[in-house]
Amino acid sequence: MRISALAAEAGLPVATVKFYLRERLLHAGTATSATQAAYDESHVRRLRLVRALLGPVGLTVQQARTVLALVDEPGDDLYATLGRAVSALPPAAAPPGDASDPFPRARAALDTLGQVYDPDFPAVAQLEGALAAAESAGMPISAERLAHYGRVLSDVAEFDLARMPGEPHAAVEYTVLGTALYEPVMLALRRLAHQDAAVRRLRGDPPPVE
Amino acid sequence: MRISALAAEAGLPVATVKFYLRERLLHAGTATSATQAAYDESHVRRLRLVRALLGPVGLTVQQARTVLALVDEPGDDLYATLGRAVSALPPAAAPPGDASDPFPRARAALDTLGQVYDPDFPAVAQLEGALAAAESAGMPISAERLAHYGRVLSDVAEFDLARMPGEPHAAVEYTVLGTALYEPVMLALRRLAHQDAAVRRLRGDPPPVE
Repeated sequence: MRISALAAEAGLPVATVKFYLRERLLHAGTATSATQAAYDESHVRRLRLVRALLGPVGLTVQQARTVLALVDEPGDDLYATLGRAVSALPPAAAPPGDASDPFPRARAALDTLGQVYDPDFPAVAQLEGALAAAESAGMPISAERLAHYGRVLSDVAEFDLARMPGEPHAAVEYTVLGTALYEPVMLALRRLAHQDAAVRRLRGDPPPVE
Repeated sequence: MRISALAAEAGLPVATVKFYLRERLLHAGTATSATQAAYDESHVRRLRLVRALLGPVGLTVQQARTVLALVDEPGDDLYATLGRAVSALPPAAAPPGDASDPFPRARAALDTLGQVYDPDFPAVAQLEGALAAAESAGMPISAERLAHYGRVLSDVAEFDLARMPGEPHAAVEYTVLGTALYEPVMLALRRLAHQDAAVRRLRGDPPPVE
């Protein structure tokens, strides 16, 4: 198809598609003349991914390019690639504290949960900042709450990982979008579940069996 | 204690404490002379709350004032008050779509989960936006995933609600801070649980029993 048909198919202005081509977020089409190129389904799929990364996921063009490079070249060490792809997503990692033990709260929490602790993985800094904020507000996460949240989210992680495509390019794409796009879904569902639980309690329904 | 001791206790500059007093985010002390006032533990606690709302929670002064008014005057209908307090937190609700059915994806999702649907509760608009974003990225939430996330987050909500203080002022404060401050903890824990699950899989550990 021509660029105008591609743009229509993706629901984007032609100028935007040209911008993505210039920025090399979208691969070139097959030249059919000096001034025209043909595009196919692979371009439609790519546009959907680029649009998600620059839209709901909220990346800059430079950050999107980093993620797309990992989708295109997942390399041999898929685990490291997935980690790098997630690291490119917001929020940006907070700077470490004391060099000998940069993330003490996160380290202790992961130790309690029996999970791997890798200070180079940005979510560790993210957890440290979140735990410190709760603490300074006078609402530190109790050991009981940490254990409960940790168990529940390990359950979610197993569910997510079991559905990861085996093909490496698709695995990176699934991981990036599944992390960034499903996070807002989970937060909204938690707030709605609070509301639902509060309504049931007010109505005097019996609590669910745990 | 004097204002200087209060500021020191809260770890804030005196100018910041004075600003909170002027903005009526902090209640006045007891006048001890024409130019001095005495402050107590209630001021220290309040400063911790104000600092959390304006800092990690990310509210504007006007939004913080709305939340604090609900903490101070929870009223008779605690359920409505908690809803209003959570509604003051980011993200701001997206505008509704078609007036006859403004949030069709969220309505269908909550119907599937057997949860209350109240279009006036901002988390409904939040869920609608998140589901629409996932859909347009070509990664719609499957019925199976929705059921799984919904079950897990109802479990979290029951846990959270069971620990809500009975005293109304404290209940509003717990709900606001527990919503806003524990959300980043949960997101970081999910990312870390993904990493942990991926490491275990690469090592060839058996999957956990579901």
